[in-house]
Amino acid sequence: MSLDHSWYTEEWAGQGSAISLKTVKKLHDEQSAYQRIEIYQTETFGTLMTLDGLVMVTDRDNFIYHEMMSHPALFTHAAPRRVLIVGGGDCGTLREVLKHPGVELAEQVELDERVTRVAEMFFPALCESNNDPRARLRFTDGIKWVADAAPASYDVIIVDSTDPVGPAAGLFSAEFYANCRRALAPGGIVAGQSESPLFHAPLIRSMHTALRTAGFTDAATFNFPQCTYPSGWWSATLASKDGSLATFRREAAAARPFATRYYNPAIHAAATAAPEFLRQTLG
Amino acid sequence: MSLDHSWYTEEWAGQGSAISLKTVKKLHDEQSAYQRIEIYQTETFGTLMTLDGLVMVTDRDNFIYHEMMSHPALFTHAAPRRVLIVGGGDCGTLREVLKHPGVELAEQVELDERVTRVAEMFFPALCESNNDPRARLRFTDGIKWVADAAPASYDVIIVDSTDPVGPAAGLFSAEFYANCRRALAPGGIVAGQSESPLFHAPLIRSMHTALRTAGFTDAATFNFPQCTYPSGWWSATLASKDGSLATFRREAAAARPFATRYYNPAIHAAATAAPEFLRQTLG
Repeated sequence: MSLDHSWYTEEWAGQGSAISLKTVKKLHDEQSAYQRIEIYQTETFGTLMTLDGLVMVTDRDNFIYHEMMSHPALFTHAAPRRVLIVGGGDCGTLREVLKHPGVELAEQVELDERVTRVAEMFFPALCESNNDPRARLRFTDGIKWVADAAPASYDVIIVDSTDPVGPAAGLFSAEFYANCRRALAPGGIVAGQSESPLFHAPLIRSMHTALRTAGFTDAATFNFPQCTYPSGWWSATLASKDGSLATFRREAAAARPFATRYYNPAIHAAATAAPEFLRQTLG
Repeated sequence: MSLDHSWYTEEWAGQGSAISLKTVKKLHDEQSAYQRIEIYQTETFGTLMTLDGLVMVTDRDNFIYHEMMSHPALFTHAAPRRVLIVGGGDCGTLREVLKHPGVELAEQVELDERVTRVAEMFFPALCESNNDPRARLRFTDGIKWVADAAPASYDVIIVDSTDPVGPAAGLFSAEFYANCRRALAPGGIVAGQSESPLFHAPLIRSMHTALRTAGFTDAATFNFPQCTYPSGWWSATLASKDGSLATFRREAAAARPFATRYYNPAIHAAATAAPEFLRQTLG
């Protein structure tokens, strides 16, 4: 079969595969200073945002990504108070971070302000905490922000970036991670989106290597499904500045004072199980 | 963007979404007595088999499905000797089952002999154990086979079926499961493919209900990624005739005398962690 022009299609670059979502109409289309931002109403995935033609977020399945980018890091840290989000312009990660009552500051540094402004219009649920007094929205270069950050100024840094090409490539380098480590207080944790285990296992390995090179003492990849990202399978890689990721605040996670739809303590414990091919890749 | 006619596309029925694989050429196309069987050479997923236009198997990602349909059940059973596979015509599950040295009989009951004959031509790796002296290939109705089976004649029954519509619908009923339970020896385990947690959570719940109705004493859903199946996220649901699924032969799984690419003991233990929405759906 072939799909008519009412379908949005993303070809998964270099993978000879593609996902399509049936759209009802296009709601928005603009070229920002950095990228093309498009919004569609889809038939079954709610609202869809694409950047330069790549799926960033849909109403239906973003809960998995945003919960897994946030809660494993925040429940692994002993007492996270100050959180930096690099990227994350749709504000879904910011919302999850601010669900933690102990967080006193959640600072989001997104390069493209238009992504956030468009998200505020079309993804109001993701942006519902943007006016939380603990939230700080900055629109500037996250790589430079981290390089300039005062030492030990954050407990958790979440790198909620686009793919490791173009402006986001620097967010996967040992130099960037070293700056993250310096900006983290003792006990600090960095978490970065780390692409698809099926399609990008070499990238995950190189992230582990770069994190170790930067001085992090432990690293672990958390796997989760993500229907609308390449291969339908995604990951976040966490690293500890000076400790271990082997344990987390399980009782606090079980007694979390907020609703989740994907994350729970059993999922936290399970997500680091490495498929045999990935275990071998990571050595 | 739109895809030209060199792409094979499967629309995920009722889900307003679709996956496409870039093909190099069509290798085979026939109408069997039951369904249309097509084989493509793809650009990056190796050989692809579709039945009535739905992806059944690709070279690249079938290892996850076949390993997760087999090894969790066989390493949960105390000492599986006699295994029945209902469906499974591509023979990939049969191959995994026969990797277990303790298995004395692996009987595969597939409705459509042409699926197996075409798999033998185009998926020789999946069919490499078809001539194992412990293998028995039957081509008949699996529902009737199980209904007619002698009581206590199998240790494990694996239902490796197509979607729960048409001829396969009966493979998800309490009546079928009751016949499976009768055909299982004490300590027996049934495992069935149970679709996508994201798309089909109500089906998974109804399977659990049907298995309990049929007398099974424990049921658990094992989640795994599966790129080319709807939503990229799939599951197998296991049930125990008279025991529990809470433990498995972890040391034997760790010391398994054969290679796997996805399965290992950590994955086994992790796969039953239920995402919060599924935990709530299953009660």
